[in-house]
Amino acid sequence: MSDRSRPLTNPVSVAHEVVGTGEDFGVRTPPVPLRGKASVEAVAARHARGELGSAEAVAAVDPNELERALTPTADTSGLEAVVHGFGVSPGTACGGLVFSAEAAVAARANGLDPVLVLPESSPDDLPGLLAAAAVVTERGGQTTHSAVVARALGRPAVAGLVDGVVLDDAERLRGARGDVLVPGDVVTVDGSTGTVYRGRPAEPLVGGHGDAELLGWLDHVLADLPGLAVKVNADSAGAAALGRVLGATGVGLCRVEHLFLGERRALLERVLIARPGPELTEGLADVRDVLRSEFTDLFTTMDGLDVAVRLLDPPRHEFLPDPASTTDPGVRSVLSRLREHNPMLGVRGVRLGILVPALTVAQVQALVDAVLAVRRSGHDPRPELLVPMVSTPDEVDVVRDLLTDVCAHAGTSARELSITIGAMVETPRAALLAGRLAERVDALSLGTNDLTALVWGLSRDDADRHLLPAYRDLGLVEHSPFERLDLDGVGAVIRQVVRDARAVRPDIRIGVCGEQAAESSAVRFLAEVGVDHISCAAPRVPLARLLAARHGLPSGGEGVR
Amino acid sequence: MSDRSRPLTNPVSVAHEVVGTGEDFGVRTPPVPLRGKASVEAVAARHARGELGSAEAVAAVDPNELERALTPTADTSGLEAVVHGFGVSPGTACGGLVFSAEAAVAARANGLDPVLVLPESSPDDLPGLLAAAAVVTERGGQTTHSAVVARALGRPAVAGLVDGVVLDDAERLRGARGDVLVPGDVVTVDGSTGTVYRGRPAEPLVGGHGDAELLGWLDHVLADLPGLAVKVNADSAGAAALGRVLGATGVGLCRVEHLFLGERRALLERVLIARPGPELTEGLADVRDVLRSEFTDLFTTMDGLDVAVRLLDPPRHEFLPDPASTTDPGVRSVLSRLREHNPMLGVRGVRLGILVPALTVAQVQALVDAVLAVRRSGHDPRPELLVPMVSTPDEVDVVRDLLTDVCAHAGTSARELSITIGAMVETPRAALLAGRLAERVDALSLGTNDLTALVWGLSRDDADRHLLPAYRDLGLVEHSPFERLDLDGVGAVIRQVVRDARAVRPDIRIGVCGEQAAESSAVRFLAEVGVDHISCAAPRVPLARLLAARHGLPSGGEGVR
Repeated sequence: MSDRSRPLTNPVSVAHEVVGTGEDFGVRTPPVPLRGKASVEAVAARHARGELGSAEAVAAVDPNELERALTPTADTSGLEAVVHGFGVSPGTACGGLVFSAEAAVAARANGLDPVLVLPESSPDDLPGLLAAAAVVTERGGQTTHSAVVARALGRPAVAGLVDGVVLDDAERLRGARGDVLVPGDVVTVDGSTGTVYRGRPAEPLVGGHGDAELLGWLDHVLADLPGLAVKVNADSAGAAALGRVLGATGVGLCRVEHLFLGERRALLERVLIARPGPELTEGLADVRDVLRSEFTDLFTTMDGLDVAVRLLDPPRHEFLPDPASTTDPGVRSVLSRLREHNPMLGVRGVRLGILVPALTVAQVQALVDAVLAVRRSGHDPRPELLVPMVSTPDEVDVVRDLLTDVCAHAGTSARELSITIGAMVETPRAALLAGRLAERVDALSLGTNDLTALVWGLSRDDADRHLLPAYRDLGLVEHSPFERLDLDGVGAVIRQVVRDARAVRPDIRIGVCGEQAAESSAVRFLAEVGVDHISCAAPRVPLARLLAARHGLPSGGEGVR
Repeated sequence: MSDRSRPLTNPVSVAHEVVGTGEDFGVRTPPVPLRGKASVEAVAARHARGELGSAEAVAAVDPNELERALTPTADTSGLEAVVHGFGVSPGTACGGLVFSAEAAVAARANGLDPVLVLPESSPDDLPGLLAAAAVVTERGGQTTHSAVVARALGRPAVAGLVDGVVLDDAERLRGARGDVLVPGDVVTVDGSTGTVYRGRPAEPLVGGHGDAELLGWLDHVLADLPGLAVKVNADSAGAAALGRVLGATGVGLCRVEHLFLGERRALLERVLIARPGPELTEGLADVRDVLRSEFTDLFTTMDGLDVAVRLLDPPRHEFLPDPASTTDPGVRSVLSRLREHNPMLGVRGVRLGILVPALTVAQVQALVDAVLAVRRSGHDPRPELLVPMVSTPDEVDVVRDLLTDVCAHAGTSARELSITIGAMVETPRAALLAGRLAERVDALSLGTNDLTALVWGLSRDDADRHLLPAYRDLGLVEHSPFERLDLDGVGAVIRQVVRDARAVRPDIRIGVCGEQAAESSAVRFLAEVGVDHISCAAPRVPLARLLAARHGLPSGGEGVR
C-alpha cells in the first residue's frame, strides 16, 4: 500500500447524495443517482462515518461510476457539437485532427495530441491508435477494432457516426451541418456521450488516473479484502508504471511484438525476412539491444513485482510488407513464401521461435542481460518467460532448453536468476493438455482473445465488422464474445484448464489476460473457478480491483452485474 | 449386398503364398511377403478352404496391400524414367503434360487425361487436381496439399522431386538427365514408387476399382461382421456411384461448394458479390437450377441410402477474385469489403447462410425440388441437411425455420419429405455444446479437418509447407495431425462430443468425415468411443470397410496398426 491509503478526507457533495427527486412537484419519482466521482465520494463518506464496512462499501460502489470518475472529463457546455456517434470508450480529449495512422504517429512524434479520424480502423492502424489522444471512426460500434483498442488503451473514442462522414479523399470530415473539418482543426472528443465538438473547452480536463484522492480511498477500502489479484497488461515501463500507480500487483502480460511498432517495425521486418548470414546476425543484435533496454526499464519500474514477458508473437501479415510493394525479386520471393492464407493459424508465437531459434535466443539473451543489469543496480527483477501459442507441450521444453543454454553461457542459471517459465493457453489443444503442460511450467496464462477466436472459429477482425452486429440483431448472440467472456464456451474451457492443471500441480499459478477478463460477470466466473489473477490494460485496473474484491466477498457479489 | 457377394472363384497364385525364401542358398531369411492382389488372394484362398473364418480372414488381410490391389497399376519395365520423387498417392496413370490448373481443366474438357505438373499446389489449384489423371509437384511430401488432395481423390501423385525441376517459365520440366519435357508430352506416373516415365506402358493399366472379383470377395467376407458403417464423401452422382460400388452405405458428406468449381465458379462468385436486386435474384435462380439437377442425380444414384448435403461453406478467398484484378470501382469496393484477414475464421458455412438467407433458401429449394422429382420417378431419396460451421446452437434453428418455410411453400413438410437436419461439429464451441446441439438435430457430423485446424490453431495450407515438416524433424510431432487423427487433442474432443450428445439423445447418429477417419488407429479409436459411421473419399471406402470390420471384432483389432 502506498501513502495514499487513507480515507477521502474531504468528501464533497455528501449532503447531496440524491438530487432532483421531483418531490417539489408532489410526484414521487425515482431518485436521480449521483454520477462519476460524486457517486464514489458518497459511498466513501458513508464508509468514513462508519455506516458501511469495507466490504459493504465495495459492494455499494457502482463500477461504472468508478470508471467514469477515473476517466478525464471536461465541461463541454458552450462548445459547438459538429458530429455525433456512439460513445465507445469513455473520457474526453482534445487535439488536432489527423486522417491516417501515419499522420497520428508523426504528430505525436512532434509533441502534439492528435485526434485520429478514419472510415474504420484495422490492425494496421494500431501504431496510430497508440499515438492518438482520441479516435473517431465513421463506421462501427462497441465491438469494432477501434473501440476495443481504444478502451484497452484508455483513449476516448467515438464510432458509427450518425451525422458525419469522412469525405472521399479521406482527408476531410463533414459534420452534421455540412461544415467540413480539415487536418489540424482542433476538436474535443467526448467518448462517453459520443460527441465531437469544435475547439477546446474553456476549463482544462479534470479527473482521470491522476486522481490520487480517489485511488487512495480505493487502496484503503480494498486493503483487507480478499479477491483475485489484478495485474496490468503493459508492454513498456510507462504503461507498467501507470498500472502500478493504479494498484496492479505485477505485469501479467508484456507483448514483445508491441515493442516493435512504429519506427522499430523495420527492425523486426528485417529479421523476419533475412536468411542466415551477416544481415540476420546484425538484425538480431539490434533486436537484442532494443529489448535489453526496454526490459531493463520495465523490471526496474516493477521492482519486486512479477513481470511476465511473452516471447514474440507477431502477426506476420502485420509485420511484413505486401509482396507487391517491393521490386526486389529476392525479397518478393521471400515475402511470397512467408505469406499465409490464415495468419492467425500460421507460424506464430513459439512456432516462429522454434523455426527461427536465433530469434528466441536474442529475446532470452535480452531478458537475461536485463535481469543482470537490474540486479547490479540493486533492484529485484522477477521475470517470467511466457511461451505463446503452445499447441503441444514439448514446445515448452524447446524454449526451456534455449533459456538454459543462454543462462549457462552467461555463467549463471535460470534458477539463480529466478526466471520462471509459463505457458500461454490460447489454443484449445493447450487447454485439453493442461495437465501435461502443468507438469512442465510454473504458470499458465489464458489468453482469452485467441482462445475465443479458436473456440468459435471466428477472427475478431473479420467478425466484428459484419457478422457479430448481424448476429446481435437476430438474437443469436447477446454480446460479442470478444467483448464479454463467453462463459458457455470459453468459460467451460477455462474451468477445465484450472481443474486439470491443479490436479497435477495444486500450486500452479493461473492467470487470465484479455480485455474480457476485467468485466463483472467474467470476474465473478473466474473467481469461482479459481484462477489466481486477471490482467488488463492499465486504465481498467482500478475497476478490475473493485470487481475482484466484490466477487471475492462471501456473498459472491450478489446482485453485481 | 450386390451379386458380387461370392468367394473369389479363381484365386491365382495360391500355391505361391511365399516366394524367395532364400532356402536355396542354405540361409533361412524371412519370407518375402506377397504384395497387392496376390496378398489378398492368398487370404481369400485360405478363407475359401475353410482354414480361416470371416473374422480371421479380415484380420489377416494387410490393409495396405488391399489398397494397393484396388489401385490401378501397370508394368513400367522398359519405360525410361525421367524424374524421381516421393510416391505420395499410389496408383499409375498416363497422360499428356500440362503445367497449370487451368490447362488441366481445359484438357479434361477436351476428353484428354492430363498429368498436371506444378512447382507446388495450393487450394486455388483444386479444379486442376480434380481434372488431372495424375499430379506431380516439384516441392512437398506426404502432407503437402497436392498429396492430400490426390489421395482423397484417388489420383496417383508424386511430390518432392529429387532430380527434376520445373523451369522458370513454369511450362517445362527438366528431368534427371537434363532432358526437358514440354506441354503435351506423354508420361506415365507411378505414385507408389514416385517415378515419372516417358511414354505409355506397352500393356494397359490393370486392377483398380473395377476389380469386381476382389470387391465381391470383400462384400462376402464382411457381410456378417459388425463394425462402423462406412459412407462416402461424394459431391456428385459419379463419385457417389463409385462409392456405392465400393460398398459405401450412403453419402456422408456432399460439399455443395465443390459443385461450383471450374466454370461454375462464376455462378457462385456472382451471387457472393451481388447486392440485393435483379442481379442477385437471377444468380440465385441459376444456383438453384444447378443444384436441383445435381441433387436429383445424386439422390437417384443413392436410391434408398442416406445422403448428407452440407450447405455451402465456400472459402471466400478461393471463390472471390483479388480486388486488384478488377477495374470496376464498385466491384472492387465490394471485394475489399468481403476480403477477410483469416478466411478460415470468417463468414463461412452457416454464417454466410444467415447473413445471406436467400442463398440458404436457394439451396434448400433445390433440395426440396430434387426430393419431389426423385420421388415422382419412383425412387426413395433420403436427404439430410447438414449445417456447417456451427458455433452456437441457435444457428441450427435459423436453418430449420428456412427449411420449414420452403417446404410449406411447396405444400409439404420436412417430415413428409423425410428431410432430417444434422449439425457439423467443426468448431470447438460446437463440440463443447454438443449436448445442446443434440436436443435440436437428428445427427452430428464431426469434420476433422476444421476441428483439427481450430484445436491446434493451425491452418493446414500454411502448416504443411514449412511448420509440420520441421516439427517432425525435431520430434515435436510424430505425424501431421491432418494426416493422422490427433487422438490426444482432437480425439479427446470427439470422445466428449459422443458422451455429451448421447447423454441427451441416445439414438442420435454421429459420424466422422475427413481423410484422417479412414486410417487404422483412427478407426479403432472411433469404434471405441462409439461413433456410428465414418465417411471418406470413394477410393478409400474398401480400405475403411476392412478397418471398420477389424476394429469391430471382439479382439478390438489387436495388433492392427
